[in-house]
Amino acid sequence: MKKLPHFVLTLTFVLTGCATATAPAGTDPMPAWSDGAAKQKIIAFVTAVTTPGGSDYVEPALRIAVFDNDGTLWSERPLYFPIAFIIDRIKALAPSHPEWAKMPAIKAIMSGGPAALGTLSERELLAAAALVETGMTQEDYRAIARQWLAQAQHPVRERRYETLVYLPMLQLLTYLRAHAFKTFVVTGGFVDFTRALAADVYGIPPEQVIGTRWKLKYGDTADGASVVMRLPEIESFNNETTKVTNIEALIGGRPLLAVGNSDGDLAMLTYTDDRVGPSLDILVHHDDAAREYQYDAGAQEILQTAFAREWVVVSIKHDFDQVYPSP
Amino acid sequence: MKKLPHFVLTLTFVLTGCATATAPAGTDPMPAWSDGAAKQKIIAFVTAVTTPGGSDYVEPALRIAVFDNDGTLWSERPLYFPIAFIIDRIKALAPSHPEWAKMPAIKAIMSGGPAALGTLSERELLAAAALVETGMTQEDYRAIARQWLAQAQHPVRERRYETLVYLPMLQLLTYLRAHAFKTFVVTGGFVDFTRALAADVYGIPPEQVIGTRWKLKYGDTADGASVVMRLPEIESFNNETTKVTNIEALIGGRPLLAVGNSDGDLAMLTYTDDRVGPSLDILVHHDDAAREYQYDAGAQEILQTAFAREWVVVSIKHDFDQVYPSP
Repeated sequence: MKKLPHFVLTLTFVLTGCATATAPAGTDPMPAWSDGAAKQKIIAFVTAVTTPGGSDYVEPALRIAVFDNDGTLWSERPLYFPIAFIIDRIKALAPSHPEWAKMPAIKAIMSGGPAALGTLSERELLAAAALVETGMTQEDYRAIARQWLAQAQHPVRERRYETLVYLPMLQLLTYLRAHAFKTFVVTGGFVDFTRALAADVYGIPPEQVIGTRWKLKYGDTADGASVVMRLPEIESFNNETTKVTNIEALIGGRPLLAVGNSDGDLAMLTYTDDRVGPSLDILVHHDDAAREYQYDAGAQEILQTAFAREWVVVSIKHDFDQVYPSP
Repeated sequence: MKKLPHFVLTLTFVLTGCATATAPAGTDPMPAWSDGAAKQKIIAFVTAVTTPGGSDYVEPALRIAVFDNDGTLWSERPLYFPIAFIIDRIKALAPSHPEWAKMPAIKAIMSGGPAALGTLSERELLAAAALVETGMTQEDYRAIARQWLAQAQHPVRERRYETLVYLPMLQLLTYLRAHAFKTFVVTGGFVDFTRALAADVYGIPPEQVIGTRWKLKYGDTADGASVVMRLPEIESFNNETTKVTNIEALIGGRPLLAVGNSDGDLAMLTYTDDRVGPSLDILVHHDDAAREYQYDAGAQEILQTAFAREWVVVSIKHDFDQVYPSP
C-alpha cells in the first residue's frame, strides 16, 4: 500500500472512518516489507493484541517476542557467520600453535576450505571451535568478537557481516518494541558472539540474548583479581527443544510471537503456537537466489508444519521489498 | 538531611552554588535512608559514574546492578520466604499424599515445625521441596506461587511476605533505574518463585531475575499441546561462585554495583569489586533486633571482607530510617 499516492490513502482512511491494519503512508512502520499478506497479518496481529478492550488484548508484561538469529535476523550463507568467525580466528592463530596441526578440523580449515568442513563430525568441529572460543576471560572474548565484527568481510557480498541483517526484520523489531513487546534473540549460535552485535544492530541488550553457552568457571588471575574463564565444554546447546526450555528458564514465560527459519526453531514456534490465547508464528523462507540465498535444506519439517498450522510464511523474494540495509 | 527545614536546604544549595551529593528536600530520591555515610557514598558513586565527561563516567549499557534477594531486598527470618512457601504447600497437600509420610523432611515439617528442619540434610530438604516445586508445568507453577504471595502471612509480622521488603532498597532500585542502571535480582532462591513477585514489587521483569533452577523438559500433554514440565532435579544452584558464572552466562557482563548480605554473595561482590574502573559494593548488615532481625550467622566471612575492602556496610539499625513500607 505504500506505493499508492498519498491522497488515495488519505481518502481511504477518511471514508472508512477508522484506523486500518496498515498505517497511512509516511507513517508506515515497516516500509522495507512489500504490502502482501505477511505484512498485513503481522500488523493485524500486533494491532489486535495491543488494542485495550479488544478480545485479543494482551498486557505488556506478556508481550514476549523471540527471534532466531542465523537465517532469521541475518544471512547464514555460505557459512553460519559465528562459524566464519571461528575459522578466521583459527587461520590467524594456527601459525603460532603448531600443536593444533594434527587435529582433523584444523587440517580441513587450513587446507580444504569451507567445503572440507562438511566431512567433519560435530565433535571434531567443537574441538576446533573450543581452541579459539575458550581458554580466555569473558572480557577478553567480548573484545575479540567485537573487533572481528567491526572488520571482517563476507566473502561473497564484500560487506561486513553485521550489515547483512534483514532490514525488514530490523523494522519488525522496532515496530514490536514501539508496541511494548520485549524482543529476545534465541539462537543456536554462541551467546557471547551474538551479544557482541545484538545491542548495536538489533537494539537488543545482552541479557535478552539466549544462545549456546560454554561452561564458565570463576577463579583468580595470577595477580589475585577475580575473573570468569571460558571452558572447552558446552554448557547448553541452544537448539530445538532446548530453545524452549531455555526460554522458560531464562525468560520465565511463554512467547506471544516467535520468528524462525529452520527445523531447529520448530519446537520454539510450536510452543508459541500452543499458547492459550492469541499468538503469532513467522517463518522466514529463503527463496531468493538473486538477492539472498535459495534453500530449503534444514527447513523441510518446519515448512510443512508452517503450512499445516497456518503460520505466516515470509518469502524473502516476495515479502521483502529491500533485503539488507543500503550500504 | 531530610529533617532540616526546607529554607535551610534551599539556602545551602544556593550558597554552595552547585549540586551536592544529597538532593534538596522534596526531591530526595531515597527518603527512607538516614542521611549517613552509606547513603552519601551511594549517591556520590551514582553521581560520579553518570556524570558525562567525568573521569569515572560509565556508559549506560555497562550500568549493571545486581541484588541478592533473601536478606537483601526482603527479610529472611524466621525462615527463608521461599522455604516458607514450600512448607505451606507441603502442609496443604500432604493429607492427600499418604505416600509422602515416610520421608524424613515431611515428618519434620508435619510434626516438628521449623526447628526440626535444622536436623535435615540438604538432600532431604530438596527431596521434600521437589514434591511441591516440580511435576507441573511452568504455567501452573507461576499461578501457584502468585496465589501464595497474594495470601500467605508472615508468622511474626502478620503481614503478607511481599510487604516485608526493605523500603530503602525499593528506593535504591528506583534511584538506580532513574540513572539508567539496569537492575537484576541474583538469588539463591528458586527463580520462578522470585519472578512471581519481582515485577510488581521490585519493578524487575522476569528475565532480569537469576536464581536457582530446576531442570525443565519440553513435552506434550495428553491432548497434544506442548508444555514445559518442572523436573525434580536441580539444574543450577545459584549461590557463591555460581552467582558469578550465571551473571556472565545470562547477563554477559561484569556488574558495576552489587548488593548482598551473606557469604553466598561474597563471590558476586568480589567480582564486582575487581571490575577495571569504578564499582560499588554494598553489604546489608542485620543489626536491628527491634525492627527487623539481628544476626551475623552466615555472614561472618563477607563482613570481614567488606571491612577489609572498604565496601559500604549498611546498618539496618542506623541507615534505614524506615525498614518496611507502611502497611
